[in-house]
Amino acid sequence: MYRTHTCGELRIENINHTVTLAGWVQRTRKLGGMTFVDLRDRYGITQLAFDGAVNAELSEKAQKLGREFVIQVQGKVAERSSKNAKIPTGDIEIIVGELTILNISETPPFTIEDETDGGDELRMKYRYLDLRRNVVRKNLELRNRLAFELRNYLIQRDFIETETPVLIKSTPEGARDFVVPSRMNPGEFYALPQSPQTFKQLLMVSGFDRYFQIVKCFRDEDLRADRQPEFTQIDCEMSFVEQEDVLTVFEGLVKDVFKNIKNVEFNEDFLRMPYTEAMEFYGSDKPDIRFGMRFTDITKEAQTKDFVVFNQSEYIGAICAEGCAGYSRKELDNLTDFVKRPQIGAKGMVYVKYEADGSLKSSVDKFYSQEDLMVWAEKTNAKPGDLILILSGEKAHTLRALCELRLEMGNRLGLRDKTVFAPLWVVDFPLLEWDEENQRYSAMHHPFTSPKKEDVELMKTNPGAVRANAYDMVINGVELGGGSIRIHDKDLQAQMFECLGFTKEQAEYQFGFLMNAFKYGAPPHGGIAFGLDRFVSLLAGLDSIRDCIAFPKNNSGRDVMIDAPSFIDDKQLKELNLQVKIEKV
Amino acid sequence: MYRTHTCGELRIENINHTVTLAGWVQRTRKLGGMTFVDLRDRYGITQLAFDGAVNAELSEKAQKLGREFVIQVQGKVAERSSKNAKIPTGDIEIIVGELTILNISETPPFTIEDETDGGDELRMKYRYLDLRRNVVRKNLELRNRLAFELRNYLIQRDFIETETPVLIKSTPEGARDFVVPSRMNPGEFYALPQSPQTFKQLLMVSGFDRYFQIVKCFRDEDLRADRQPEFTQIDCEMSFVEQEDVLTVFEGLVKDVFKNIKNVEFNEDFLRMPYTEAMEFYGSDKPDIRFGMRFTDITKEAQTKDFVVFNQSEYIGAICAEGCAGYSRKELDNLTDFVKRPQIGAKGMVYVKYEADGSLKSSVDKFYSQEDLMVWAEKTNAKPGDLILILSGEKAHTLRALCELRLEMGNRLGLRDKTVFAPLWVVDFPLLEWDEENQRYSAMHHPFTSPKKEDVELMKTNPGAVRANAYDMVINGVELGGGSIRIHDKDLQAQMFECLGFTKEQAEYQFGFLMNAFKYGAPPHGGIAFGLDRFVSLLAGLDSIRDCIAFPKNNSGRDVMIDAPSFIDDKQLKELNLQVKIEKV
Repeated sequence: MYRTHTCGELRIENINHTVTLAGWVQRTRKLGGMTFVDLRDRYGITQLAFDGAVNAELSEKAQKLGREFVIQVQGKVAERSSKNAKIPTGDIEIIVGELTILNISETPPFTIEDETDGGDELRMKYRYLDLRRNVVRKNLELRNRLAFELRNYLIQRDFIETETPVLIKSTPEGARDFVVPSRMNPGEFYALPQSPQTFKQLLMVSGFDRYFQIVKCFRDEDLRADRQPEFTQIDCEMSFVEQEDVLTVFEGLVKDVFKNIKNVEFNEDFLRMPYTEAMEFYGSDKPDIRFGMRFTDITKEAQTKDFVVFNQSEYIGAICAEGCAGYSRKELDNLTDFVKRPQIGAKGMVYVKYEADGSLKSSVDKFYSQEDLMVWAEKTNAKPGDLILILSGEKAHTLRALCELRLEMGNRLGLRDKTVFAPLWVVDFPLLEWDEENQRYSAMHHPFTSPKKEDVELMKTNPGAVRANAYDMVINGVELGGGSIRIHDKDLQAQMFECLGFTKEQAEYQFGFLMNAFKYGAPPHGGIAFGLDRFVSLLAGLDSIRDCIAFPKNNSGRDVMIDAPSFIDDKQLKELNLQVKIEKV
Repeated sequence: MYRTHTCGELRIENINHTVTLAGWVQRTRKLGGMTFVDLRDRYGITQLAFDGAVNAELSEKAQKLGREFVIQVQGKVAERSSKNAKIPTGDIEIIVGELTILNISETPPFTIEDETDGGDELRMKYRYLDLRRNVVRKNLELRNRLAFELRNYLIQRDFIETETPVLIKSTPEGARDFVVPSRMNPGEFYALPQSPQTFKQLLMVSGFDRYFQIVKCFRDEDLRADRQPEFTQIDCEMSFVEQEDVLTVFEGLVKDVFKNIKNVEFNEDFLRMPYTEAMEFYGSDKPDIRFGMRFTDITKEAQTKDFVVFNQSEYIGAICAEGCAGYSRKELDNLTDFVKRPQIGAKGMVYVKYEADGSLKSSVDKFYSQEDLMVWAEKTNAKPGDLILILSGEKAHTLRALCELRLEMGNRLGLRDKTVFAPLWVVDFPLLEWDEENQRYSAMHHPFTSPKKEDVELMKTNPGAVRANAYDMVINGVELGGGSIRIHDKDLQAQMFECLGFTKEQAEYQFGFLMNAFKYGAPPHGGIAFGLDRFVSLLAGLDSIRDCIAFPKNNSGRDVMIDAPSFIDDKQLKELNLQVKIEKV
């Protein structure tokens, strides 16, 4: 028995108890004849006291303890003379009688404190030390808590957690698969699942009725800050449901989680916004609706004079930044630079200041009169003191740029408070999107998404206009989850594959088992999948999903701590019937 | 809304309610003017009634429904005239007013009944239909329930479920890894984890204190009935613990699960048996102690005469089969054939019948007198009416064969009742075992297992004699889980690697990150991992783990339903810098 209590447990009631504690040395300090050690474990910090006058040898041993040494102490709980109200154990200390060093520690490469001196790279290399920091471990504890709440909610509602295979079949549709060579089946490969999509649909065919799984998924994509080659989904599916049923159950799930974990209550139904509205007024299918600043289309109103830039634009959009009429030249230049960054790619930005005195001052004063500008101001609902920002050009491109500008203004105006949560369902997604590169339609969601009944006929005549029974849950501009009602009719599924340019043979080779399953009484079904990493990040107010993953990979897909991937030996390659052949670039 | 109730929900209290149900047609039957349909979903079966005299058209439509059609009905709940006490909905039926066919079904390739006419292979190919059968789905429901109970127990005791990476680093130690080529790191490979062993140890270094994870693991081994290339572990680790602490927590877990799921209470502490005792008396490190029939070593007692077979044997072992003295010649020959099967490999079997009249009759009567045989009988505690079975030869080999014979006799005597559970801790495993092929020691458990303190000195002088702080939980002869206290001292870990024949460089390359972590204050720690598949099988009384896995693979590692693994296209291979080169055999 290494300890009788944890370092977060002892209180004033325990005074005079003899206890044994174990943990890490957070710090030691000397005060006159006394030596104090802060002993740390996951549960808290307890102060240890050594009185040099009582036991000089022990006190000296304590003074020699280094940071992060692992020790065990036996002693008596005593009331502190100077209490520390900041920690739950702050009323007491341990008068140590015995001290055992369980393990020594070299000086860690960075400080194990909430504010550490370690850079990103160093912290990743020594991730096991980084995880010792409270702030990092708290994220993982939150992750565990979230998974627990999710499971409780779903299991209470008859969902069965069912594991689906990790070694599956590669499909060229969608993102790139990670593959796994099969030794027992020479020349053949498994693939790691990008999602358990087809398996959960098969479980519906099996009559499982309500399925979920918290499951690792894999995508061999070039990585960004919020992407990892392996990520975790909360994957759910239900039978005998329409879109409304799915939205009800999972809106309930999200409300439940926020209530239990963040003590945030959503008393209203979540707002629902059609995809077209989200694109038109926010330039994004995942609008952050913590703040307004919706786009105003002033194309017609602005194409009235000789300003060539506007006149040649397909679309002219404006946002109104409240109270920003006082922006300096420098601030405006800075915003112009922001929208001209290559990631955003606007050619320029036009502004109109609605001065407090009611006059309008703009960067296009030589083309537009006060009256012209007043028309824009009225259309954007600007008031004296506001600033109107305008972008123009090809429509889709301009909407995207305006979206970035709006978010940037939201940041600058402090409208994106991480403690405020604004949930939203984006609905009525298009079924298909045109893929310029391959000159064919591809599935906006995935090839199993059901078109809306009233739009099925359009699949033959105008596939791009077909709306899907697809929905995303968006909170604070983060796509937390997405799903759809699926096709359960084999003929409709065949038609969908045809729309996507699959030959019958390709469809059969890739998804024959699913189409076959649909022959034997597939029920109507639909579902949703949430990103667990994103969900935790959102709840924890993190900027990157990396911080809520115990052992994340870097942007090259490397685990720098264990140094993976790595080379494998020739014997292993030979057993797998493989040769490495690196193409020279 | 497809339904107001499930097919398992309606009772006599619901009479006269108007309800909507949806599900699968289990069967239809005609009785005079009435047509009855059994409507099935996961929750149960509800009888639908169609009266030809009331609505001829609807009744006719109902008669045409095929097995496994998916339908929706609206109707009124009515009391049945002839009730069915066997099902919870047996008091009522639905007088159907509306019938909608949601999906048709071809005739399934086998019947969807508890006793099906489908063979193994067919059922695997159409696994989605096999899963519709109650008996199969119940196993998956049990699996879900078990995982829920396990999580509850562990989370209540401050264990944090933490996901560890799936894409890790290949290590040649242990079983063969599945590998995953990295596109972004040409020529390099990830490996899929055989277990999260090193990561959970790192989490202990991180101060997570108590970790668990229900997690997929992977082993590229040649497969047997109870092996799958991917399997699920309940992986656990604790800090500041000794063996006793771990056994206490996890004995509690198993008791809790049996109580909540099977209503089986274990009121006593689980038996503990040292490895040497298990081997000596059961010939196995996972003895089935539902029955006795322990081995008796009669080497000394049997090497007293001129029977060369015995005299040349290193070991002669006997078991006593109660009440089997009446076995016929045929039964005895049959047992002899059993032990001579190549998998068991005994050269022969000697028997002694202790007849009811007190005389002894044996297959070696010409060598041994009644008095000789009586010595054996006494040593094996045989009584009149019992049968003594004896094997002999090289010791380890004979113990293994005797183990099989004992289990076979247990089966024949009905001593292995699947509703009886006999748990056991096997403890004090050897740290190392001698690997004849490679002429070196290998780790019995794994290279991170701690030797017993009192045996550390032996590592230098007699490594084979060192006992480990390792333990297995065995129930009914199934190794449900195993674990150990780990090494947390970097010097001892280095010594262990040395024992295993690692050079310093190899140890550094493979496990440098772990040895490095141990420099920064690693706490004493230990843990255990249970096989979830085996745990479910045991609770469900299944013979193979395959039946408790939703989508298992066959003995060649193939998923015959989705037809994986499969060939991938050249573009994919090229991106991965790989060429397939199948060696001709």
